[in-house]
Amino acid sequence: GGPVAAALRELRCSCLQTTQRVQPEMISNLLVFAIGPQCSEVEVVASLKNGTEVCLDPQAPFLKKVIQKILDRENKDN
Amino acid sequence: GGPVAAALRELRCSCLQTTQRVQPEMISNLLVFAIGPQCSEVEVVASLKNGTEVCLDPQAPFLKKVIQKILDRENKDN
Repeated sequence: GGPVAAALRELRCSCLQTTQRVQPEMISNLLVFAIGPQCSEVEVVASLKNGTEVCLDPQAPFLKKVIQKILDRENKDN
Repeated sequence: GGPVAAALRELRCSCLQTTQRVQPEMISNLLVFAIGPQCSEVEVVASLKNGTEVCLDPQAPFLKKVIQKILDRENKDN
């Protein structure tokens, strides 16, 4: 499996590198790992609708917008 | 397993009810599910350090603060 499956399974970091941009509409789920025994850094893994997974920079300003877009989609669509 | 394991495995909603409050420090990871074939609502599942999982209201104002606290922890601790 990808980084998400690996992280749920193993005690190690999930992300080797981060992607600078991702379209919010492409994200099927977003997994935020707090600092813990598995990794000394915050990690954000996005599972995309095309079946791939990418890591996002937790400090990137665009991440806040991506999260907000996902959370707000509920209001628009329902 | 809990809701996270179930959601990764099955095409159905993960959350029956949401928790109003959770301490950010207690969260080991946070999983945000966009609307998709598995569920017509946005869902947010927090895995806690005590091994339990709770669902959070995607529209709750405190969720933004919780997410921000997790993401910002990197800066404070490193």
